[in-house]
Amino acid sequence: MRLNVRTLFGVLSTLAIICLVTIWTNCSDRTFDTYSKHIKPNYEELVNDVKSIDCIINGNNNNHVDCLIKNSVVYIPFSFLKNYFEIYGKVLETADDKITFHWSHSYSKVYYQNGKYDSRGVFTNFQNYKVEERNRVKCISASHGVPVSTQWNPHGYYYPTQIAQFGLSHYSKNLTLPSPKVKVLENGQMNAPWSIPTSSKLQISFNSQAQSNVLEFFTNEEGISLNINNENYFFVNFDVALSILTKSSIVITLIEINKPEVIWNLHYTCSKSFILAKGHSIYHGMHCTEEFSWIKLARNLIVDLQKGLNLLKKTSTKMIRSKYKLCDFKLFGMGLLDNLTISSHDHISQFYSAANWFIKHQDKNSGGWRNPVTRKISPVIQPLKPGWLSAMGQGQAISLLSRAFYHSGGNEQYLNTAWAALKPFKVYSKNGGVLSEFMNVHPWFDEYPTIPPIFILNGFMYSLIGLYDLYSLTPNTSQVSQEAFLLWKQGMTSLKNLLPLFDMGSRSAYDLRHITLAIQPNIARWDYHATHINQLLLLGTLDNATVIHTTAKRWISYMNGARASHN
Amino acid sequence: MRLNVRTLFGVLSTLAIICLVTIWTNCSDRTFDTYSKHIKPNYEELVNDVKSIDCIINGNNNNHVDCLIKNSVVYIPFSFLKNYFEIYGKVLETADDKITFHWSHSYSKVYYQNGKYDSRGVFTNFQNYKVEERNRVKCISASHGVPVSTQWNPHGYYYPTQIAQFGLSHYSKNLTLPSPKVKVLENGQMNAPWSIPTSSKLQISFNSQAQSNVLEFFTNEEGISLNINNENYFFVNFDVALSILTKSSIVITLIEINKPEVIWNLHYTCSKSFILAKGHSIYHGMHCTEEFSWIKLARNLIVDLQKGLNLLKKTSTKMIRSKYKLCDFKLFGMGLLDNLTISSHDHISQFYSAANWFIKHQDKNSGGWRNPVTRKISPVIQPLKPGWLSAMGQGQAISLLSRAFYHSGGNEQYLNTAWAALKPFKVYSKNGGVLSEFMNVHPWFDEYPTIPPIFILNGFMYSLIGLYDLYSLTPNTSQVSQEAFLLWKQGMTSLKNLLPLFDMGSRSAYDLRHITLAIQPNIARWDYHATHINQLLLLGTLDNATVIHTTAKRWISYMNGARASHN
Repeated sequence: MRLNVRTLFGVLSTLAIICLVTIWTNCSDRTFDTYSKHIKPNYEELVNDVKSIDCIINGNNNNHVDCLIKNSVVYIPFSFLKNYFEIYGKVLETADDKITFHWSHSYSKVYYQNGKYDSRGVFTNFQNYKVEERNRVKCISASHGVPVSTQWNPHGYYYPTQIAQFGLSHYSKNLTLPSPKVKVLENGQMNAPWSIPTSSKLQISFNSQAQSNVLEFFTNEEGISLNINNENYFFVNFDVALSILTKSSIVITLIEINKPEVIWNLHYTCSKSFILAKGHSIYHGMHCTEEFSWIKLARNLIVDLQKGLNLLKKTSTKMIRSKYKLCDFKLFGMGLLDNLTISSHDHISQFYSAANWFIKHQDKNSGGWRNPVTRKISPVIQPLKPGWLSAMGQGQAISLLSRAFYHSGGNEQYLNTAWAALKPFKVYSKNGGVLSEFMNVHPWFDEYPTIPPIFILNGFMYSLIGLYDLYSLTPNTSQVSQEAFLLWKQGMTSLKNLLPLFDMGSRSAYDLRHITLAIQPNIARWDYHATHINQLLLLGTLDNATVIHTTAKRWISYMNGARASHN
Repeated sequence: MRLNVRTLFGVLSTLAIICLVTIWTNCSDRTFDTYSKHIKPNYEELVNDVKSIDCIINGNNNNHVDCLIKNSVVYIPFSFLKNYFEIYGKVLETADDKITFHWSHSYSKVYYQNGKYDSRGVFTNFQNYKVEERNRVKCISASHGVPVSTQWNPHGYYYPTQIAQFGLSHYSKNLTLPSPKVKVLENGQMNAPWSIPTSSKLQISFNSQAQSNVLEFFTNEEGISLNINNENYFFVNFDVALSILTKSSIVITLIEINKPEVIWNLHYTCSKSFILAKGHSIYHGMHCTEEFSWIKLARNLIVDLQKGLNLLKKTSTKMIRSKYKLCDFKLFGMGLLDNLTISSHDHISQFYSAANWFIKHQDKNSGGWRNPVTRKISPVIQPLKPGWLSAMGQGQAISLLSRAFYHSGGNEQYLNTAWAALKPFKVYSKNGGVLSEFMNVHPWFDEYPTIPPIFILNGFMYSLIGLYDLYSLTPNTSQVSQEAFLLWKQGMTSLKNLLPLFDMGSRSAYDLRHITLAIQPNIARWDYHATHINQLLLLGTLDNATVIHTTAKRWISYMNGARASHN
């Protein structure tokens, strides 16, 4: 993009110069030069005496690169270096019209800690995560308000780790972003200006389950609608109970501002399908378990629309909020409605959706959240069969539940769920838990409980943060706190002993599969490398061990091209 | 050098072209171009449209590099890349006058195995080693005919590992180079044309120790001399017994062929100094233990001269054999002489000098050869105090002694010395041996028995080769063979388990100090990386384990710029 603009500018300025030369035929070269410089004072100058030279790479006569040579200095094209060394670079134009080339060794960012890590605060740098927008999130489930993953099964499934990350990101956003602006539209008092066709009915009704007045609706095919017409609020909350005997639904309409004829209908209805899309309708299915059971919906309409568009176009869609407008809210069929609000955002509802999912879906026996997919790690290792547990999933769920315990002012359901989630940390992976040992010496909590284990670093450190969160957010003297503390200490000891094994001298390793499977090292891509650093910086505020600090510092230097020295 | 020649050629051809232009003033540009191309048909052509561009490295505004840009492709100067990535490159002129740039990722060489490793054959690629020419070899001791090291003590000391390497290199050269040409000058029969001044005496005398006739000499200050005058033979062997009561010596004279006035006198005399040099005299001291004790000398005169020149000039001297001529051989003082020969080379004598040194200098208790120097490994680890043993020294001595046992037709002294050398492999480093364990699980033989151990890979593999050599060169049923076999198997098991820990994804690690000392990895420089590969290729012919073959293959690919992939 940038280059095209430059090319255009180049063509235009060349034309201008030709024009000037034609007019000023009497001008000396010197004057012309001065004028040319005046137009683009810092523009790069033409270089003379450059010759072409053939570069032969590593003695391979079939591997040639066209290079340049000037005053005995050989110049290598970046296009070659980029792939050979996996280096990043781009030409940028600075404010003073000068172009420069920016060479980058890595593409990720380090987040420095601001004081000691506080389990009540943001979770690592998750305030920057947009879990629901990821391509591998099929949709946000209407039943539970949590993401549905397609990472290892295209049909979609609940992936505990992803759900925890979704919840933790919204908890963190809630702490770092301005408070939401909320508009209450309807709270069971008929306070909204509903358009009710003659053969439809909308009335206030006392609901014993809700212990308050709610709206009861019965509509014809046209439905009952509420005009909203808002360009800023795309978050809708409401409680709904639908009749499963009629084809009842809630339909929210969005239009494209510049093309008001393009209407998108977001349907929320009883169905076992997570999401469907057809024409301009996008259907999110709620798993209605019984007649008129209440479901609490907290919907980011832009995300719901995005997921539908992805289905329709079979590609990922980048959403621009300002392109859309929330148009109206419609009731179809037979059902109950309460607490309808729209807001600029609602991170805390999404956080609790996730936390509540973990309460509802914990396996009572194991204390784990089962991953209902086959997970293939490597061709040389047995795939994990559906039902496996993940130390990372457990740990991040614990981080989430500990925060829910704290944020809810001490709701014991969150605490007890988190406590039960410690169980798999004490059971070997081969027996269905997440515990393994490096060389029979150092205990480790497995992100993937493979046999043999592969010792994934980031997942292990996330599990440690979870253990610390539970320990630090529960009373010191409680059994749960002490249990979490012991596991945390055990894990930190292993981390300090094994961390150096992940140092590859110019990058970190993602795991230790090269040791346990005797294959090539699995180098961490830069974003995982940065994750390792960010986790170490966090853990370094809780444990002052030198190895944590020096490793983090060295790994940061690797991001700028430093290498461990050789002998 | 190459570039200077090119520059000169460039200047000359430019002059030639100017000259031609002056003569052919009527020639069109086209004709001139053609002619110019005719002179240097494939010479690189001038490139147009190249502009300069500033490169900013890793966002550091103080780190700029002057780059070039042509058609949107940025070119980076190799002078920057060279240091940033530690890459090698040079401009070379090919046979057809074309210049090309040769990019090299590494500078070392891989030696592929030709069939199964045979302990009777060359030792790895040691036929290419020139141990005695190394800068850190002070001289070849006149007492023992083995190198004196200055690596960790500038005064000089016997370094068992270096002595073993010296012996093994000569054993290997003996197998790979043409047979030496030998001239017997004197064998106790007065067969050489000695020049005997009147007041000196030279006579045949029966020697009871040698059980043969030898020459007995008594000289005035002028000495007794034998003119040799040979330009090809620089290896001198003789047996000598000097009077320690008179200042007796053997003096061999070399001259520079083009400057016959430059005379170098190589003195071999009784003294505790390894080597001294003054003016044009170089003194090698023999440790004469008693009156008229026989010493067998096998001297490479070029090396003896080189070491003297190094002392005189305080810098390393590159020797050109063809510059010198062996002039004469002189006897001074009082002594006995026998078996004087000159030869083109004598690798087998040097091999046995080393093997015999190991017989004489083994510590009876430990079975080890003590290193009489302090060895500092890292600022964060206790230095080794003089007297430490090395698994690499033990292993290479065993390789040498096993070959001496084989080559001598079964001399048991070599066998028994090698057998005793197994002892330290069974004693923990902390107790004076060379054995340690990785994470209390995998036994390892330490090149340096530090506490904690640092697990140096090449030294360990050399010790394994030694164990294999002893096992394979002794009868299967013998106790020594079985003992060596057990240690070899134990070591190979550890190697196969721990080898992946040395894989850094783009290079191998020299050791595991990053794990045991929690510091930055100690990456192997390319020659050690190549040594690792060569050792694995050798061991891979003895043990077919996949990890050995795949690791060797991957490490070879690293030398050509390949990297382990990231996730």
